[in-house]
Amino acid sequence: MKSAKFLLLLISLNAISNIVTAAGPPTCPADIGSDCATGSGEWEGEFFPNIPKIKYEGPTSKNPLSFKWYNSEEVILGKKMKDWMRFSVAFWHTFRGTGGDPFGAPTKVWPWEDGTNSLSMAKRRMRSNFEFIEKLGVDLWCFHDRDIAPDGKTIEEANANLDEVVALAKELQGTKIHPLWGTAQLFHHPRFMHGGATSSELGVYVYSAAQVKKAMEVTHYLGGENYVFWGGREGYQSLLNTDMERELDHMARFFEAAVAYKKKIGFNGTLLIEPKPQEPTKHQYDWDAATSANFLRKYGLIDEFKLNIECNHATLSGHSCHHELETARINGLLGNIDANTGDPQVGWDTDQFMMDIGEATLAMLTVIKNGGLAPGGFNFDAKLRRESTDVEDLFIAHIAGMDTLARGLRNAVKLLEDGSLGELVRKRYQSFDTELGAQIEAGKADFDFLEKKAKELGEIKVPSAKQELAEMIFQSAL
Amino acid sequence: MKSAKFLLLLISLNAISNIVTAAGPPTCPADIGSDCATGSGEWEGEFFPNIPKIKYEGPTSKNPLSFKWYNSEEVILGKKMKDWMRFSVAFWHTFRGTGGDPFGAPTKVWPWEDGTNSLSMAKRRMRSNFEFIEKLGVDLWCFHDRDIAPDGKTIEEANANLDEVVALAKELQGTKIHPLWGTAQLFHHPRFMHGGATSSELGVYVYSAAQVKKAMEVTHYLGGENYVFWGGREGYQSLLNTDMERELDHMARFFEAAVAYKKKIGFNGTLLIEPKPQEPTKHQYDWDAATSANFLRKYGLIDEFKLNIECNHATLSGHSCHHELETARINGLLGNIDANTGDPQVGWDTDQFMMDIGEATLAMLTVIKNGGLAPGGFNFDAKLRRESTDVEDLFIAHIAGMDTLARGLRNAVKLLEDGSLGELVRKRYQSFDTELGAQIEAGKADFDFLEKKAKELGEIKVPSAKQELAEMIFQSAL
Amino acid sequence: MKSAKFLLLLISLNAISNIVTAAGPPTCPADIGSDCATGSGEWEGEFFPNIPKIKYEGPTSKNPLSFKWYNSEEVILGKKMKDWMRFSVAFWHTFRGTGGDPFGAPTKVWPWEDGTNSLSMAKRRMRSNFEFIEKLGVDLWCFHDRDIAPDGKTIEEANANLDEVVALAKELQGTKIHPLWGTAQLFHHPRFMHGGATSSELGVYVYSAAQVKKAMEVTHYLGGENYVFWGGREGYQSLLNTDMERELDHMARFFEAAVAYKKKIGFNGTLLIEPKPQEPTKHQYDWDAATSANFLRKYGLIDEFKLNIECNHATLSGHSCHHELETARINGLLGNIDANTGDPQVGWDTDQFMMDIGEATLAMLTVIKNGGLAPGGFNFDAKLRRESTDVEDLFIAHIAGMDTLARGLRNAVKLLEDGSLGELVRKRYQSFDTELGAQIEAGKADFDFLEKKAKELGEIKVPSAKQELAEMIFQSAL
Amino acid sequence: MKSAKFLLLLISLNAISNIVTAAGPPTCPADIGSDCATGSGEWEGEFFPNIPKIKYEGPTSKNPLSFKWYNSEEVILGKKMKDWMRFSVAFWHTFRGTGGDPFGAPTKVWPWEDGTNSLSMAKRRMRSNFEFIEKLGVDLWCFHDRDIAPDGKTIEEANANLDEVVALAKELQGTKIHPLWGTAQLFHHPRFMHGGATSSELGVYVYSAAQVKKAMEVTHYLGGENYVFWGGREGYQSLLNTDMERELDHMARFFEAAVAYKKKIGFNGTLLIEPKPQEPTKHQYDWDAATSANFLRKYGLIDEFKLNIECNHATLSGHSCHHELETARINGLLGNIDANTGDPQVGWDTDQFMMDIGEATLAMLTVIKNGGLAPGGFNFDAKLRRESTDVEDLFIAHIAGMDTLARGLRNAVKLLEDGSLGELVRKRYQSFDTELGAQIEAGKADFDFLEKKAKELGEIKVPSAKQELAEMIFQSAL
Repeated sequence: MKSAKFLLLLISLNAISNIVTAAGPPTCPADIGSDCATGSGEWEGEFFPNIPKIKYEGPTSKNPLSFKWYNSEEVILGKKMKDWMRFSVAFWHTFRGTGGDPFGAPTKVWPWEDGTNSLSMAKRRMRSNFEFIEKLGVDLWCFHDRDIAPDGKTIEEANANLDEVVALAKELQGTKIHPLWGTAQLFHHPRFMHGGATSSELGVYVYSAAQVKKAMEVTHYLGGENYVFWGGREGYQSLLNTDMERELDHMARFFEAAVAYKKKIGFNGTLLIEPKPQEPTKHQYDWDAATSANFLRKYGLIDEFKLNIECNHATLSGHSCHHELETARINGLLGNIDANTGDPQVGWDTDQFMMDIGEATLAMLTVIKNGGLAPGGFNFDAKLRRESTDVEDLFIAHIAGMDTLARGLRNAVKLLEDGSLGELVRKRYQSFDTELGAQIEAGKADFDFLEKKAKELGEIKVPSAKQELAEMIFQSAL
Repeated sequence: MKSAKFLLLLISLNAISNIVTAAGPPTCPADIGSDCATGSGEWEGEFFPNIPKIKYEGPTSKNPLSFKWYNSEEVILGKKMKDWMRFSVAFWHTFRGTGGDPFGAPTKVWPWEDGTNSLSMAKRRMRSNFEFIEKLGVDLWCFHDRDIAPDGKTIEEANANLDEVVALAKELQGTKIHPLWGTAQLFHHPRFMHGGATSSELGVYVYSAAQVKKAMEVTHYLGGENYVFWGGREGYQSLLNTDMERELDHMARFFEAAVAYKKKIGFNGTLLIEPKPQEPTKHQYDWDAATSANFLRKYGLIDEFKLNIECNHATLSGHSCHHELETARINGLLGNIDANTGDPQVGWDTDQFMMDIGEATLAMLTVIKNGGLAPGGFNFDAKLRRESTDVEDLFIAHIAGMDTLARGLRNAVKLLEDGSLGELVRKRYQSFDTELGAQIEAGKADFDFLEKKAKELGEIKVPSAKQELAEMIFQSAL
Repeated sequence: MKSAKFLLLLISLNAISNIVTAAGPPTCPADIGSDCATGSGEWEGEFFPNIPKIKYEGPTSKNPLSFKWYNSEEVILGKKMKDWMRFSVAFWHTFRGTGGDPFGAPTKVWPWEDGTNSLSMAKRRMRSNFEFIEKLGVDLWCFHDRDIAPDGKTIEEANANLDEVVALAKELQGTKIHPLWGTAQLFHHPRFMHGGATSSELGVYVYSAAQVKKAMEVTHYLGGENYVFWGGREGYQSLLNTDMERELDHMARFFEAAVAYKKKIGFNGTLLIEPKPQEPTKHQYDWDAATSANFLRKYGLIDEFKLNIECNHATLSGHSCHHELETARINGLLGNIDANTGDPQVGWDTDQFMMDIGEATLAMLTVIKNGGLAPGGFNFDAKLRRESTDVEDLFIAHIAGMDTLARGLRNAVKLLEDGSLGELVRKRYQSFDTELGAQIEAGKADFDFLEKKAKELGEIKVPSAKQELAEMIFQSAL
Repeated sequence: MKSAKFLLLLISLNAISNIVTAAGPPTCPADIGSDCATGSGEWEGEFFPNIPKIKYEGPTSKNPLSFKWYNSEEVILGKKMKDWMRFSVAFWHTFRGTGGDPFGAPTKVWPWEDGTNSLSMAKRRMRSNFEFIEKLGVDLWCFHDRDIAPDGKTIEEANANLDEVVALAKELQGTKIHPLWGTAQLFHHPRFMHGGATSSELGVYVYSAAQVKKAMEVTHYLGGENYVFWGGREGYQSLLNTDMERELDHMARFFEAAVAYKKKIGFNGTLLIEPKPQEPTKHQYDWDAATSANFLRKYGLIDEFKLNIECNHATLSGHSCHHELETARINGLLGNIDANTGDPQVGWDTDQFMMDIGEATLAMLTVIKNGGLAPGGFNFDAKLRRESTDVEDLFIAHIAGMDTLARGLRNAVKLLEDGSLGELVRKRYQSFDTELGAQIEAGKADFDFLEKKAKELGEIKVPSAKQELAEMIFQSAL
C-alpha cells in the first residue's frame, strides 16, 4: 500500500473532486517533509504559524490581517456585533476547496494536506479548521458530512468514518464553538447523478434517507442550531425524460420523513431549504424563495421549514439578493444567509466573498427588520478564487467578507437613525393610513363599494416615487 | 374641431401610445380619402378586400395565405383540431399595435384607421376585427377594455364608451364567436404608474376595482369564457421605496373582492393570472408560475384561479415555455396559453409569433396531457414586427402561428402513437413501481425503515438517463 | 388651429413619443394658465423658481439640493474637479423625457410644457435647459437635432426649424457654455425603421446623409467639441431577411463621407461611435467596443473615430462598464463616457443615474490612466424613473450622479496615493521586467528559442493572484 | 508500484479531471477482469462489439443506430454529403469525458478504461478512438495533446509520451483518416492558472510556446488540416489585478511566433482562433468573432488566421450561432465549426450535441454561401450528458448530431432551390441596384451630393420587411 502515496494524490472535495496527474502539482509540498511522505505522521504545531489572532484595528488600519469594521463585542442597536452577525466558516470551501474547476486541476497546496482522503488526514484537517476558526474569532462552522470524513464502501463504513471525525470535532469544539448547521452531501457520488430524494432510482432515495438520517444525528450531537437541505441534484436536465410531478411528490415524502425524524430524536434546530435555480442541473426544484415556498405550502410543510438564502443563488435566479431576503422574510421564512456574491456578468455560481458594501447594507436592513437571524446566521459559503493560493488568502478573504457585512450593519444603522429613508417610504403609503385604507386592508371593501368610492374620488393625484432621492439617501450612508 | 385633423394624428394603443409629429407619417392614408379627412365617415365595404377566406391546402402548398398544417375540422385523438387549439385573436396587438417602440414612432398605417381614438373609430375597428376573425377562421377573441373603447375623463364616461362598443361587438359576434377572455388594462394611464391593485396610492386601488368590476361585467355579457389578470405594473422598480409586504396584501384583498364579485354576477368563467417576471417593472409580483402559485396558496386563493402561461414571459423568467406549462399543469393551474415566443438572445418581451416547431410540439404534449385547455385556449398574444407594415402581414403572421401549433399537435400525436419516448420515461421510474416504491409514495417509509433498507440494498446500479436518445426520438417526430 | 389645443397634447421625445388620449393626463397643467391654453404666450420668469443654485456643502450636508462630493473648483491631481469631470446635461432625457414606456403614457407634466411640439415651445424649452445648466453649475450640454427642434415635412423645413432653435441656443450659451457633443436622431421617424445608413432603402441612406450633414454643421456652429454616432437602428431584427455584409459596407461608405465632410467644414471635434449591443434591434452593428473597433479597422477608419462608452450599454453586452472603458482605452479609442447605469437583473436599457460608488471609482481609475477625457467628458445619458415626477427630481438625480462620480474620483485618487493596489499589479508581472521578458515583448523570442528556455527553466512556480486582497484594498478606498 | 492500482483510479480529462475516492465508483469494471487489475494487459477484440457499422437507412427507420438523413456518398449541390460536412470526432469529449462536473465525480465507466492515465492506457484508448471513427463512418478527428497522451514531469517526458501515442495514431489512421485539427491543451495544469500566452508569469509563456511548438509538429506529422488556438485561460478573472494591455501584447507576440514556426516547418494548415466569451475566466480575450477579428487586425495578423466558431460559445456571448457564422464569413474568417449547442436558459457551456433542425439549417445556409468549409469541417465538440452512461449513448449522440446537420443541409438546399427566401432578400435591397446605389456603394457620393438628392427625393416610401413571411418560408423547409 505504501508505494501508492508516492504516485498519487487524492483530493476529494465537497463539490469538485479533481485528480492530479502523476506529473503535475500539487505534489507533496516540500515543507511538510516526512509527514507528507508517510501520510501517517502527526502534524506538529500550528497550522497557521504566521497568522496572528485577528483583531479589530479600526477603519484606518492598513493591516490586511485585521478587522477594520467588525468589532465583535461592540454593541449596536442593543446587541453585540457578533450576535447580529453570527458568522460561520464553511468547512467544505475553506478546507476541501482545491481550486479545481471544469477546465482545470486543483491549484491549492495547503501545507497540512498529505494528498489523501484518509481518516487521519480528515482529523488533521479538522484540527486546522478549529485553529482557523479561533484565529478568525468566530464561534460557528458549517459542514457537509462527506467533506469532513471519508466516504465508505458501505453506509456502515461511511457512518463509522463520520463518527470518528465527529467525535474529534466535538472534543475540539470546546464549550463555545458549535455548528451553525450541518447537511448531507447528496450530489458528488455518481449514485446521485439523477438526484437524491428525486432520483428516478428507488435505491438512491433509500440511500439518501439513510444518509440524511445520520447527518441529522451528528448535527444534533454537535449542538448544531440548524439543518440544511440544498438540493444538489434535485431537479432535471431535460423534461423529455423526466416525470417532474412524481419527482416532486418523492421530495415531499422525503421532507415529511425528515420532519418526523427530527422530532423523534429531539432535534430542535430549524430545517432549512436552500434555493438555487440551476447548476448542476438545468432546473433545480428549489429555484428561488417563492418556488420553495410554493412547494412547502402545496405539501403542507410550510410550518416545518425556513429558507437559507444565498446571494449568488439569488442573482442567478434573476433576483437581487435583497429581493430574495425580503421575499423570505415576508413569507416568514428567513432562516439563514449564505453570505457570498456572484459576478453580475457571469452565468454560473462563482461563490465569491461579498465585497460590495451596498449589497451588504441592503442585506443588513432586512436582517434588522427580521430582528436578527438567530438561530440562523451568516455562513461564508464562499471560496477563494482558484488563483488565490496563499494560506493567508484564506484569512484575507474571510476578514474582508466579515468587514463588508459589518460595514453593512453600521450603514444600515446609520440609515435607520437618520430616518429619512423610512420616512420617505411611510409617506408613500400614507393614503392607506386612513379609514378607507383600513377598510380595504381588512377585506371589507367589495367591488360595489369601491366603484361608488371611485366615482366620488374623481381623478387621483399620484405623487412622485422619489426613487433617485431614495438612492441618494441610501448612498450617503455608505 | 376640424382643424385638428390636419395637424395631428392620435393613435392610442393597448400598450404603446405614440405620437406622430406634425411632419411625420403615418399620415392620413391617401386611399381613405374623405373618411380620414372627416374622421366621421362610415367605412364602406371590406377591410381586407384582397384577402380571401383562409383555407387548408396541405403541407405542399406554397400559398402564404393558406394553412399547411391546421385543418380545423380534422379529427385528431378524438377531437377536432379547432377544439384542441381554440385559437383566439388578441385585439390589442392586431388592431391597436402601431409598431411604436421605445425608440420610435408608429409605423403601421392601416387603411381603416383615421388617426383618432374616437368612438366611431373604435366601432369601425371592431368591425375590422370580426372580418379578420372570420377570414382567419377562428371563433375566439381576447380584449383589454381600454383598447376596444376610448377612455373617458371619468369612470362614467369610460364605462359609457365601453358599453357602446361592447354592444356592437355583441351584435357582430353572432352566435358562434365570443371572447376567450377579457381583461382590464391597468397600466397605460399615468395613474397606474405605481401599479393598480398594488399602487401606493389608495385612490388608484379604488379606481382599479371599479375598472375590473366593469371589465368582468362586459366579459360576462359577451360570453367570455375566462377573465385574465395580467399585473401590468403590479410590482416594484426599487425595493428602497417599496413596502412589498403591504403591496402583496393589497393584491390579495383585491383578488378576494374579484372572486366575490364574479360569484355575485354569476360569471362562471375561469379567473386567470398571467405570470411575467419583469417589464415594465423591475420585478413583477406574478414572476412565474411557481411564484404565482405561492401567492395564491398563501392567501387561500388557490382554488379560485388558474394561470395563463405566456411563452415569452416564461423564457424571460429563465424557464423554458415547456417548464412553465408543466409547472402550471402539475399544480392544477394550467388554464390558458398566450401563444407567442421571444428571441432567445433578447432581454425584453418581443411577443413574436411562435414559429419553432420543437417548442410547439412540447407545448402540445403538455396540452394533451392536460386533456386540452378548454375553457381556455391559445391566445395569439403576439405582434407583427415593427417593420412588417403590409395588411397581409397580419394574416401571414397568424397563419404561420396557427400552422406552427397545428404542426406541433401532429408531431405530439406522432410521438404518443410511436410510444417509444413514453416507454423510455416509464422505464426510468420503474424501480418505484414496486412494493417498496408504493410504500415510499404512500408516505409509509420513515427514516429508520429506510436506513434498514439501504443497508440491505448495498450499492445501487444507476442506469443511463438516455437524454440523447430521447432527443433523437423527439426530433424524429418533427 | 385654436381648437386643436383643447383636444390634444403633443409630446415628441428623443426616444419615446407617446400620445395622450383625450381623457388622460398629462393635461394642460393648471398652473400654466393661459400660456398653455394659447400655446403661444411667453413664459414669464424662472423655470425653477424653487431651486437655488446648487452649491458644494460637503459630505455631512443633509440637503438634497447640494453637492456633498463634487466641488468644482477644488484641485485634485493637478486639475480642477470640473476639468476632470466635464459634466454634460443630455437635452433629450432631461427636457424631452416624458416617462412614457412601452406599456404606458407619459407621466411628467413639467409646468413650462404646453403640450405641443411647436417651434415656440422648442424655444421656451431651450431656455429651461440653460437655466437648468446654470443652476446645476455645469458648462456642457448634449443634443439630438430632432429633440431640440420640431421635425419638418421636408428637409428644408426641418433644417429651418433647427436653425431657428440653434440660433437661440447660441445666444443663450454665452461665452462659457457649449455642447460636449451633438448628434442626428436617425431612429424615431418611421422612415428609419430599417436603419439610417444601413437601411435597405436607398432613399433613407440619402436622407440620413443630409440630416447628419446638417447636424454636424450646427454642432460646429455651437462650438461642440465632439460629434456622436449612435446607431439607433443600424442593425438587424432577423438575419433571414438581412444582407449584413451589404449593410455594413453602406455604413462604412457613410462614415467615410462624414469624415470627409468634417474636414471640409473645418470641424475639429472628435467623431465618436457609441456602442450598444441590442435594442431597438436584435443586433446593433456597434455591439461593443471591440466590435466597433473591428469595424473601424476593417474599413480603414480607425484613426478617424473614437468611442463614446455608455455604462448601461456595456453591461447589456455582457461586460462590466470598466471592461468597456479599458478596452476602448487600450485601443486608443476612449473619447467620451455616457454616465449612466443599468439594473443588473434587467435585460433592457434602463438609463439610470449612476449611484454605485464602486463602479464610479473604477471608471475614474480608467479616466485618470487616460489623462482625462477632454475633449470628451461625462454626459448624463440618464433619465428620471418614470415614477419620478417632481421638477426637483431632475436636480436630485443629476446632483446624485455628479456626486457619485466625484466620489469615484476622490476614491481613485486615494487608491493611487496609497499605492498598494498598483504595487500588487506591478509585482504580478515582474517576471517580464527581465531580459528574457524584454526579448519576448520585443518579438525576438521564437519557438525554438523558447523551447530551449522552457527546458532550462524546469517547473515554474506560479504565485497567487491575490484577488481578494485586491478587492479588500479597493473596498477600503470607498 | 503495483499496489497503487488496487487503491486508486486515475482519470485525467481534457477539461475535467476528477478523482474517485477510495470507496466510490467508478471502480474497476467487473467485465474487464484482469486487464483492469494489472493495468498492463492488452485489450482483446473489439471495443464496441455490440455496435454495428452505422448505415444510412432513411428517415423512416426507427433504428437508433442508423442514419436517417446523413447519406455520406449522396451528391447534393454537386458535392458528396461527406464533403459538405467533413465531420470530425473530438477525442477529448468522447474518450476523456468522464461525466465529472463541478459538483460531482465521474460517472462513465467505459469497459476499456483501466482507471489509469498510463501510456499503455493511452494507446488502448487511441485504438478505441479509431474503432469508433470507423464504425461511425467519418474520416476526421480532433485532439488536444495532453488528452491523447499522459503529461510528463518535464517537457521532454511529456513530449516523449506524446510521440509514442502519436506514432500509434499515425499507424492506425491508415491512408484515409487524419486530424481535422490538433491543439495544445494549455488550461488544465495548475501552471496555467493565470493563462498560457497571457499568464502574468513569464515561465508559463515560455512553457506554452514549447508546448504549442510540439503540438503543431505532431498535428503536421499526422496530416492535420488545421491547428486551433482555444484560449482556455487567456483572459482575466478581475481587472483589479490585471494589466490587460500587456497581456494582449503578449498574446500577439505569441501568435506571431506561431505563424513564423508554422512557416518554418512547412505546415500549410489553417491556424484557427476559437472565440469564447467566458468560462473558465470571467472574460476571455477571444470573446466573440468580432473581438477576435479586432485583435487580429490590431496586431497585423488578420491574414494568418481564421476562426473556429462554436455554437455554444456563440450563444454564451449573446449572439445566435448563425450570427457568429455570418460575422466570421463576411470578415473572411470562417474556417471551421465546432458543432454543438447550449441550453438557451443556462449560463455556462453545456456542449450538447446539436439537435435543433432550425439551427442546423441556418448553419448550413452559411456553409453553402461560404462554398463549404474545407480545409475546415464540423468538429463534434460536444459531450454526452453526465447522466448518459451507456457505451451506445456515444454512438446515439454522434448519429443524432450528424443527422441533424445533414437534415440542415437538405433543408438549406430546399430553401435555395425554392428561391423565394432569396428573392425576398434581393427585393429588399433593390433600390441600391440602381445608378445612384452604385455611386453610393463605390464611395462616390459625398454629403453635399446626397443632401441635394435628398431634397429631390422627397418623402420616401419604406416597404415592409416581411419578417413573418421569411419565417414562414424558412419553417416550411424544415
